[in-house]
Amino acid sequence: MRDGMNYAPQGRPNPVCGPGDFVFAAVGLDHGHIYGMCNGLIEAGADLKWVYDPDPGKVAAFRAQYPLVRTAVSSEQIFDDPEVRMVAAAAVPAQRAELGLRVLNRGKDYFTDKGPMTTLDQLKRVRAGVRASGRKYAVYYSERLHVESAVFAGQLIAEGAIGRVLQVTGLGPHRLNAVSRPAWFFVREQYGGILCDIGSHQIEQILYYTQASGGQVAASQVANHHHPRYPELEDFGEALLTLDNGASGYFRVDWFTPDGLKTWGDGRTVILGTQGYIELRKYIDVGRDSEGDHVYLVNGEGAFHIPVKGKVGYPFFGQLILDCLEGSERAMTQEHALLAAELALIAQRDAKRIGRRE
Amino acid sequence: MRDGMNYAPQGRPNPVCGPGDFVFAAVGLDHGHIYGMCNGLIEAGADLKWVYDPDPGKVAAFRAQYPLVRTAVSSEQIFDDPEVRMVAAAAVPAQRAELGLRVLNRGKDYFTDKGPMTTLDQLKRVRAGVRASGRKYAVYYSERLHVESAVFAGQLIAEGAIGRVLQVTGLGPHRLNAVSRPAWFFVREQYGGILCDIGSHQIEQILYYTQASGGQVAASQVANHHHPRYPELEDFGEALLTLDNGASGYFRVDWFTPDGLKTWGDGRTVILGTQGYIELRKYIDVGRDSEGDHVYLVNGEGAFHIPVKGKVGYPFFGQLILDCLEGSERAMTQEHALLAAELALIAQRDAKRIGRRE
Repeated sequence: MRDGMNYAPQGRPNPVCGPGDFVFAAVGLDHGHIYGMCNGLIEAGADLKWVYDPDPGKVAAFRAQYPLVRTAVSSEQIFDDPEVRMVAAAAVPAQRAELGLRVLNRGKDYFTDKGPMTTLDQLKRVRAGVRASGRKYAVYYSERLHVESAVFAGQLIAEGAIGRVLQVTGLGPHRLNAVSRPAWFFVREQYGGILCDIGSHQIEQILYYTQASGGQVAASQVANHHHPRYPELEDFGEALLTLDNGASGYFRVDWFTPDGLKTWGDGRTVILGTQGYIELRKYIDVGRDSEGDHVYLVNGEGAFHIPVKGKVGYPFFGQLILDCLEGSERAMTQEHALLAAELALIAQRDAKRIGRRE
Repeated sequence: MRDGMNYAPQGRPNPVCGPGDFVFAAVGLDHGHIYGMCNGLIEAGADLKWVYDPDPGKVAAFRAQYPLVRTAVSSEQIFDDPEVRMVAAAAVPAQRAELGLRVLNRGKDYFTDKGPMTTLDQLKRVRAGVRASGRKYAVYYSERLHVESAVFAGQLIAEGAIGRVLQVTGLGPHRLNAVSRPAWFFVREQYGGILCDIGSHQIEQILYYTQASGGQVAASQVANHHHPRYPELEDFGEALLTLDNGASGYFRVDWFTPDGLKTWGDGRTVILGTQGYIELRKYIDVGRDSEGDHVYLVNGEGAFHIPVKGKVGYPFFGQLILDCLEGSERAMTQEHALLAAELALIAQRDAKRIGRRE
């Protein structure tokens, strides 16, 4: 059964650089997102040179997908290679910051799966590491960066299609598929909590669409509503945010996608503006179309259904490569990437525990 | 242009009583909802005997719709008529409690448009008036009671279609259509604030679908984002609720329906359960179908699109008549109706004011 852990979109090759211009390695294959991260970089022109993971089974599966990659004997071997510009990693969430700091300290850019860390102390050390190294700690917020409808929404907003954005509501249901999950997935200290984990996608989208550069958590709640077998799992979370530019955002995330849905989650984003609104049906148009990437736009001109699957691409990866090569911030600012994480960590830390006594 | 103020659904006649068994009057025609209220009662077998409003224009318009109604010279004339069992009213919100207390004190049931009052002090006096009189202070929460998809969702939940309800998210956009609005609509003390007004619909739905009997407001926010010409208008509001049974609810309400939408608002309700979820597209299936009342159900059995327009009816009105005749609480408990109002008033009182300085 399809779950979000193995969602690794493939797009069209659209290289921003030539062979050998941007060499990267994959280290830390704990989350399947590493495949989406590598696909995006390779399509944008990057060369995947090395892979390393202590688990030979994970390395073998990875090599089956990318036959030309070389297997390193240690992460140190990769860090020692001056040709490697970037290390991409989807480690266990609690280990992402430590790994990233090692990468930065070796003068390379780091590209990590979301949530990029699990504690505010790690965040503080990451901010210091970025400052000291001058390198990038980039984050794979896949639910926007690797979703064509989500990319297209950003373009519509930039063109003024809905005026000034006032509010973003995100629904992020995911399929649990518990038997397929690694042990760390159920250990609170390892995965960091649901708001820190899949909630970070939502906060990144809220900040991006509202163009906010700061915010506060007005309220947040988490629960284990229905999985007593996994006492440290949070199967539900939600938060209301107040942003520094007067806009606001709400999101709900959960692990309750029913078996009857033909994809891993009916992810939605509703963006309210002064002149209209946009709804994204990201992975399916439930009851209507099993293909994803449906954009619904309503403004003064009318109501429009715009299916964009295969028509938008994923500009983030090429922009990220150029940013690393040129020291720019086209793809995403460092502060934006870390602010999304910070608000997720604060929402998680301050969350009220809800749910009935079972 | 269609707006919610004139949304007065008509259903099929389905009388629960015979001619003369249940006589009512309409007093207070300030909000167009009075037409939906009267339609519902008449279809369920009630006899509309009297109308009174100090504005002859409103009375004339009302009589054009209901030619058999008699015009009273005062509300007192109606209160003095022992045949009248119920007074239905859609007065200016700030006057609804005072009018209702007069009705209760005259031994008649009261049926008011939502929000049923605008202050917590009024609520306290209403609770005392209900106790003292033994009569009903019923509320027309039309966005559930007079919407077939919303009624059908309650039936699905009762049948166990999505397991235990964990969370309800409601989006309640409305068209402003400012030129059509009466003066009181823009006076904060008169309409009570956006959470008290259209927010009360949302809270009623959250309480109903979660079957909660109490709750707290975790956070609430209001704004005048884009209507400086009407400084006392709140054009945006949202709240996050924590319920006494461990479930939760979030809603967003606003006056930003764009002109390009073919109805007054793209109202949605998403109900998350342990075994599935339901989405209601209440008034339109945007970009797909201009007719409303679309139910989307996903559970272990599959994903289903169920259009229910014309297939469900509005059982509330007949139940309300029987409740008044028999002293029962089939339609809605008194406590539920007033709890929804109480949480709306608390959300309104405690709301953080957001929005940028314009």
